[in-house]
Amino acid sequence: MADTVLIYSRFPKSLMARIGDRFDLIDAAGKPPAETFSPEQLKHVRTLITAGGQSLKSDVMDMMPSLGAIICYGTGYDGVDFKAAAERNIIVGNSPGANAASVADLALTLMLAVTRRILPADQYLREGGWSSAKPSPLMSPQAGNPGRKIGVYGMGEIGRKIASRAAAFETDVAYHSRSRHDVPYRYIDTLAGLVEWCDVLMIAVRAGPDTQHIIGADLLSKLGPQGYVVNISRGSVIDQEALVAALAGKTIAGAGLDVFEKEPQAPDALTAFPNVVLTPHIGGHTLDSHGAMQDCVIANLTAYYAGQKLPYPVVV
Amino acid sequence: MADTVLIYSRFPKSLMARIGDRFDLIDAAGKPPAETFSPEQLKHVRTLITAGGQSLKSDVMDMMPSLGAIICYGTGYDGVDFKAAAERNIIVGNSPGANAASVADLALTLMLAVTRRILPADQYLREGGWSSAKPSPLMSPQAGNPGRKIGVYGMGEIGRKIASRAAAFETDVAYHSRSRHDVPYRYIDTLAGLVEWCDVLMIAVRAGPDTQHIIGADLLSKLGPQGYVVNISRGSVIDQEALVAALAGKTIAGAGLDVFEKEPQAPDALTAFPNVVLTPHIGGHTLDSHGAMQDCVIANLTAYYAGQKLPYPVVV
Repeated sequence: MADTVLIYSRFPKSLMARIGDRFDLIDAAGKPPAETFSPEQLKHVRTLITAGGQSLKSDVMDMMPSLGAIICYGTGYDGVDFKAAAERNIIVGNSPGANAASVADLALTLMLAVTRRILPADQYLREGGWSSAKPSPLMSPQAGNPGRKIGVYGMGEIGRKIASRAAAFETDVAYHSRSRHDVPYRYIDTLAGLVEWCDVLMIAVRAGPDTQHIIGADLLSKLGPQGYVVNISRGSVIDQEALVAALAGKTIAGAGLDVFEKEPQAPDALTAFPNVVLTPHIGGHTLDSHGAMQDCVIANLTAYYAGQKLPYPVVV
Repeated sequence: MADTVLIYSRFPKSLMARIGDRFDLIDAAGKPPAETFSPEQLKHVRTLITAGGQSLKSDVMDMMPSLGAIICYGTGYDGVDFKAAAERNIIVGNSPGANAASVADLALTLMLAVTRRILPADQYLREGGWSSAKPSPLMSPQAGNPGRKIGVYGMGEIGRKIASRAAAFETDVAYHSRSRHDVPYRYIDTLAGLVEWCDVLMIAVRAGPDTQHIIGADLLSKLGPQGYVVNISRGSVIDQEALVAALAGKTIAGAGLDVFEKEPQAPDALTAFPNVVLTPHIGGHTLDSHGAMQDCVIANLTAYYAGQKLPYPVVV
C-alpha cells in the first residue's frame, strides 16, 4: 500500500489514466473522503491529488494521518490550507506553467467571442434571422481590436501569455501586478488605475485571501459601459453578485467567464444574459495541457515516494 | 442630380449615414434597381455603391447609361464584371485593407471558438450539464495551439494579419499563395501541399473564377479527421456540398465560417452540426472597420465627382 494515491477532487477518469498506470489510485471523486473510505483505508494514504481550488483544510488532513504530500493537478493551490499542511509536515506540489498556454488561449477566445458577439451571431444565423433579414440589435457593429486597451491583471506565466497574444491583435496592452516585471507592456501601479484605463480587463491574478472579491461594484463601475471583463483565474476574484448587477444595469458591456464562485455552477442570474460567454472551467482543458500537468503530477509523486524533493513544489 | 449615388446592395441604413451626409443616396436595397426606380431615375445615376460580392453585370450597367463608377464598400469586388465595366468606361474602386484587421480578428475568433468548442461549452453550462456532472462527449479535451500547424491560404493584407495573430498563439504558420511574399512564414508552393501539412486551414484568398470551389472533396480529405477549416473570404471558394459531406462523414473535425455560397443564408445541412461556428458575414463588421470603409467610399466618390482619379481604384 506504499504508493496508494487518493484522488481528492472530481476528475474525469480519462485524466487519471496515465497516473493510474504508475500508482494505485483510490477515488473520492470530490466528496469528503470519509464518505467513501473507511478510517482504516485512509490511514494508509500518503499522498493525494487535488484540483487545487477545492477546499482542503485540517479536518481532511486529520483523516489521513500518514498524509505527506498534497499534489495539485494544475497551477492553482488556493483551496489548500498551507498553515495546516505545514503543521503536519505535509508538502505541497503543483504543475506550474503546464497549462499556461491553454489558459491564455481560452482568455483570448473568451475576449474575442464576447466582444465580437459570436454566440448571438451564430444563433442569429442558425435561427434564420439572417436569411429573413430580421433586425437584431445584438448584431450592430462593435468596437474592434486595433487600439483597444487591454488591461492584464496579474503578470505570471498566464498573464504574460495573455499579453503577448492580445498584443498581436494590434491592441494597447498594460498590466498591474504586485510588482513591475521585465515585460514590454506598460505597468500601471494600482488595480483601480488599470481598470479605469482599460477597455477589456483580463483577470490572470493568482487567487487568495488578498484577491477575494477584489473586483467588486466599485471597480466594475470604473470599467464602464463599453468595458468587458474576462476571468480565467478563479471565481473568488470577482464579486459575482456585483457582476450580475453590473450586467443587469448595463454599467459594463459584457463578460467572458471560465470560473465561478461556486463550481461546478454558474448562477441563473448570469446564464440569463446574452452578452456573456460562459465556459465550465476548461481553461487548462487541452490534450497538451493535460499531458503536461500529468507529467508534473507523476514527477512529484515519483520523487515523493523515492524520498526526494518535489521537482515542482509550491513555496508560499 | 449630379451627385446622386445608387445603393446597389442591401446595407443597414446606419452604415450609409455618413456617406448620405455628403451625397444624395437612392436605395435599391439589394434588389434589381429597375424594381425600385424608373428608367428616368436610373438614367441620372453616375455612381453606385455595392458590397462587392453581389453580381453586377452588363444588364445592370445598361440600366444606368450615365454610370461611370462602381464603388465597392469593402475589399471584395468578385461580383463585378470588369470586362463589361471596362467596355462601358466604368471605373471600379474599393476599400483596400480598411477591414483587414477586423476580418483577420474574426478568422482567429472562429478558429479559437471552433477548436475550443466554445458554443457547446457555453450551452453545456447554460443548460445545467456542468452542475449535474452530465457526461458530454463534446467536452473531451482537444488539441491546443502550441505547435499547431496553421495553413494560411492567401497572403494579402488579411492573410498577413491572420498569420501574425496565429503565430502569437505559439503555432507553426505556413502559407500558400500564387507567389512567395516577404513574410516570416514558410511558403508551401501548392495548395494541396499546404492542406496536407496543416491542422487548421485559414482561407484568406481573394475570390474569383480561379478559386471557385477550389476547396472541394479532395482537399477536404487531405485536411483529415483532426483538421479544421476557417473561411472569412467568400463562400464560393469552398464547395459547400463537399464540406457538408466531410462534416457529416467526420472526415474533418469542424469548421468556422463567416461566408457562404448563397448569402444571406447557410443551408440547414450546415446549421445542424454542433462542431461548426457560423457567423452572418460579419468579418468587416466593427465600428473602426466600417469607419475606414466609409472613408474610402467617400474619398472615391468625392474624387470621381471632382473629375479626379480614384484614390482607391481596383486594378485587375
